[in-house]
Amino acid sequence: MTIGAPATPDASAAPRTPTSLAATPIAPTAEQLATVKYNEAGLVPAIVVDHTDNQVLMMAWMDEGSLIETLETGRTVFWSRSRQERWRKGDTSGDRQWVRAAYYDCDGDTLLLSVEQEGQGACHTGARSCFYRAFG
Amino acid sequence: MTIGAPATPDASAAPRTPTSLAATPIAPTAEQLATVKYNEAGLVPAIVVDHTDNQVLMMAWMDEGSLIETLETGRTVFWSRSRQERWRKGDTSGDRQWVRAAYYDCDGDTLLLSVEQEGQGACHTGARSCFYRAFG
Repeated sequence: MTIGAPATPDASAAPRTPTSLAATPIAPTAEQLATVKYNEAGLVPAIVVDHTDNQVLMMAWMDEGSLIETLETGRTVFWSRSRQERWRKGDTSGDRQWVRAAYYDCDGDTLLLSVEQEGQGACHTGARSCFYRAFG
Repeated sequence: MTIGAPATPDASAAPRTPTSLAATPIAPTAEQLATVKYNEAGLVPAIVVDHTDNQVLMMAWMDEGSLIETLETGRTVFWSRSRQERWRKGDTSGDRQWVRAAYYDCDGDTLLLSVEQEGQGACHTGARSCFYRAFG
């Protein structure tokens, strides 16, 4: 580091606005994709967390096509069970999710996406996380 | 710190063994319980995270009875779809989960449990989290 250069920002204190909206596509192997198990409706649950602090933002469903599109484009794409169609998160709301890492669980029947959340948050109510209500 | 004494462990590197195994039951309101929506099989997905760092540990399913038992007893109880029976996490493995907070999402169709994880971890493989494999 050059003397007199600006201090390196502490990553843990970084603001929650995205520092970069660039997509970082992920290239899965065929073996990884084949490990994913879909339910009788052809869907797999996908948990979405914030890449900065692991906060769970939402849970939605993916079909195989939306998983592949998510990894290829670096933005989350889900399957809407109510509308029976694929939807790309944020196209309407602006609350896009930029995928920074993606995982599949031990059984291959649940996905975990670590994202950079753009906009207000992940929830359609405007909340940062869909899990804003506690029992008790 | 006394010279020559062992260095104080960095809290971030502290062992993940629980500091207290006491259950902290949660008393939900009838309205909160009524908000939860179960699928056609009578089940709702439940995401489990570590209460210290929000790491996603696992995802499993609950029927209404296992949700109520989880909140009342302060330990996670799930519904096994393969065995078609209720199971209390850790009774066999010792990897019990002590619930510290519980949430339901905006649509009421997904649960989030924040737990103190006992033992090696949440995964039957011995891993701390079931999501130990990344795409790419």
